[in-house]
Amino acid sequence: MKAIGIMRANAVASDVAGAVAAASLEARLRGLAVHGGAAGGGVARQALSAPELEARRWLVQPFGQRPGYRVGIDAAANVFVRRDGQDAGLAPVMTGSHIDTQPLGGWLDGAFGVAAGLEVFDALDRLGVRTRRPLDAVMWTNEEGSRFAPGLMGSVSFTAPERLGAFLDACDGEGTRFEAARDAAREDFRAEARRQGWIGLDTPLARPVHSYVEAHIEQGPVLEADGLQVGCVVAIQGVRWFRITVPGRSAHAGTTPLAARDDAQAKAVRMAHALLEHAAQCGDERLRVTIGRWECSPGSINTIADRVVFTVDARHPEAAALDAVRALLDATLPAGGRIEVLQDKPTVQFDGALVNLAREACAALQLSHRDMLSGAFHDAMPLAGFCPTGMLFAPSRAGISHHPDEDTPVADLTACTRALAWCLVRLAEPVFPSTPPEHLKE
Amino acid sequence: MKAIGIMRANAVASDVAGAVAAASLEARLRGLAVHGGAAGGGVARQALSAPELEARRWLVQPFGQRPGYRVGIDAAANVFVRRDGQDAGLAPVMTGSHIDTQPLGGWLDGAFGVAAGLEVFDALDRLGVRTRRPLDAVMWTNEEGSRFAPGLMGSVSFTAPERLGAFLDACDGEGTRFEAARDAAREDFRAEARRQGWIGLDTPLARPVHSYVEAHIEQGPVLEADGLQVGCVVAIQGVRWFRITVPGRSAHAGTTPLAARDDAQAKAVRMAHALLEHAAQCGDERLRVTIGRWECSPGSINTIADRVVFTVDARHPEAAALDAVRALLDATLPAGGRIEVLQDKPTVQFDGALVNLAREACAALQLSHRDMLSGAFHDAMPLAGFCPTGMLFAPSRAGISHHPDEDTPVADLTACTRALAWCLVRLAEPVFPSTPPEHLKE
Repeated sequence: MKAIGIMRANAVASDVAGAVAAASLEARLRGLAVHGGAAGGGVARQALSAPELEARRWLVQPFGQRPGYRVGIDAAANVFVRRDGQDAGLAPVMTGSHIDTQPLGGWLDGAFGVAAGLEVFDALDRLGVRTRRPLDAVMWTNEEGSRFAPGLMGSVSFTAPERLGAFLDACDGEGTRFEAARDAAREDFRAEARRQGWIGLDTPLARPVHSYVEAHIEQGPVLEADGLQVGCVVAIQGVRWFRITVPGRSAHAGTTPLAARDDAQAKAVRMAHALLEHAAQCGDERLRVTIGRWECSPGSINTIADRVVFTVDARHPEAAALDAVRALLDATLPAGGRIEVLQDKPTVQFDGALVNLAREACAALQLSHRDMLSGAFHDAMPLAGFCPTGMLFAPSRAGISHHPDEDTPVADLTACTRALAWCLVRLAEPVFPSTPPEHLKE
Repeated sequence: MKAIGIMRANAVASDVAGAVAAASLEARLRGLAVHGGAAGGGVARQALSAPELEARRWLVQPFGQRPGYRVGIDAAANVFVRRDGQDAGLAPVMTGSHIDTQPLGGWLDGAFGVAAGLEVFDALDRLGVRTRRPLDAVMWTNEEGSRFAPGLMGSVSFTAPERLGAFLDACDGEGTRFEAARDAAREDFRAEARRQGWIGLDTPLARPVHSYVEAHIEQGPVLEADGLQVGCVVAIQGVRWFRITVPGRSAHAGTTPLAARDDAQAKAVRMAHALLEHAAQCGDERLRVTIGRWECSPGSINTIADRVVFTVDARHPEAAALDAVRALLDATLPAGGRIEVLQDKPTVQFDGALVNLAREACAALQLSHRDMLSGAFHDAMPLAGFCPTGMLFAPSRAGISHHPDEDTPVADLTACTRALAWCLVRLAEPVFPSTPPEHLKE
């Protein structure tokens, strides 16, 4: 677009952002939370469970027959709602997230990103804005990985279809194969489509995508602590998971002098302490180390431990910092100990132009914002290797997530959805004349 | 006794010690290990189980009809073998230990002390030595506390009969009450006594005891490391058990900066580290601290822990050293944390004259020896508050105990039994003329 075109597009983007309605967004999120809503609070809606399939139908239904929309499900059971563009041959601009939850999660998490995308569609419709490119809102399958491991199955399969086959054999706790759950989800969707007369969309895996922007709650305390509305996510920080086994020799706590001991617990505590001291004293607030599991054997109050196993989750945007953690673990590992790498995911950088577009959106809409890292994984991670990708964060109250107490003020959810709308309109390119009717302007 | 009497008594004590026979001692211990012997090695002979009752009968049988002996079982199911003294009105000198084991233990542990006592009886009989005081060899009930908690039930009930009532309701893992097991053990013993024509002994609880000397394996590595044969036990060191609860706030390992965390695991590691550093640097090799249990919640690799519970077993012969441990725990306990005292047993000092007698025995028999502390509990602990009490230790190979690998060279077991014989003869006072026949002298 030329400069004058960008100015006009920005104006339309701001208008659409302004048409995002807090009440409509909240109603969709509250309605969605009913599907899998737990009696004691929170949402239990694991991947491809009955409540998740129910929720998918409920979200798709308002768009299934709406003129200018088409809906479909792909081979990984990812569900798409397409808002047609003027030029059907162009690759779509995509948004969305996931609506599956941990065994007991909150009302937002990925659900926010899906509801935000659909709210942008409603806002576009309210103003009658058309775009050159199609817009897809997607619900990715099994982001959480809590029912079927690993997570991100839908977004990984979409971007790398050759990996779908390996996922099909994953089983849940009751022995149900992912393949069976996926087939049932696809059949459920198609049956509903037939009943409701939904207009179908072709959904091959790995089809071209122009760009992907995902809205999500931060799941951390940074935005709230800074008093900001929107996070422009620059990267998903790298993570390495280590499992450390420290051996010892079991003996009687009373009869064995300290000098004669081979105490696995004492050795493990010294090693863990060295790691925590390193993290506290390295002066780099981006380094995050967590010792989430700690098991000792035989676990008797008056017996010296013969084995301790603990885990380290280390995250940092730079590989060198994670290498330093590994070096420290190697240097402090007691003789006979073992370090296993359970996971090693390098930092995922988001597209510079999309990060910039997110900043522009916030500036144009006068939303307080900052650049930040994502500490958690998201469907945007596999997408980033597939097409230009960006993310927007809304604050999380007290940083709580994956918990019934997960919450964000609706005003903040709305602000983030407005920034998303602004970005999507710019990426999909409004078709002129598409200025909204005067009566809808503030 | 006058000096000349003591010299003669020492000579008899040395003769009896010399009559202790390694082959006889080992045969009794190997035979005993058959009762409850586990297929894969080790001994499974928990308190008042069928194998333990079988073993009691087997040990008593050779003495049940022997002239000069009487046998009985008391209200706590403690079994006594009495070797009569010249003066039946005098309180007996007592020795013994326990033959119950942990769920899977070794062949020695308390069994050694019982077998050693009975071997001393055989040695006295070989030489035809009579004593002024009666000698009792006892098998205390449920020292281990692994089937019925707590341990030391038999020796505690003997010395403090008012405490027996509270033990009767203790249940094992299958719901059997201690009272029922005790009644069955008493009936089993009496039935066997009737069948075999054993000569009965009156066995009231808390009857007067002149003195108690218990032989036991060390269950620690000290004697072996020092290359010594016998330990003269000065005291059972004090022990305090603490349970420490450290609270935190669960949060995502990736999204929560270190500065925003309340990480229970990190706080617990720092506290445990401070304790271990204190123990390592206080320069007092008598201090023993053990962190035997460590549990964290929720125990997920990428979730910050919201709770850690760990235990501290602290031992030292002086209360001030244990007070210092408590003070350190108090000083390092994070806000909101809790310290519970699960057990607090002060140091038990053994009778100075008996400790001295043990040293004399070793000197007279030219056995290498040292004074030492007991790190573990023994039946001698309650006895120490009841009558003059002492203990003798035999080395434990590699300090291993409560394990199928528990072992001690038979030569060391024999040496310790000889020291026991020397002490028992001196305490029970040999009756003159009782010089052994010339042909039995070396």
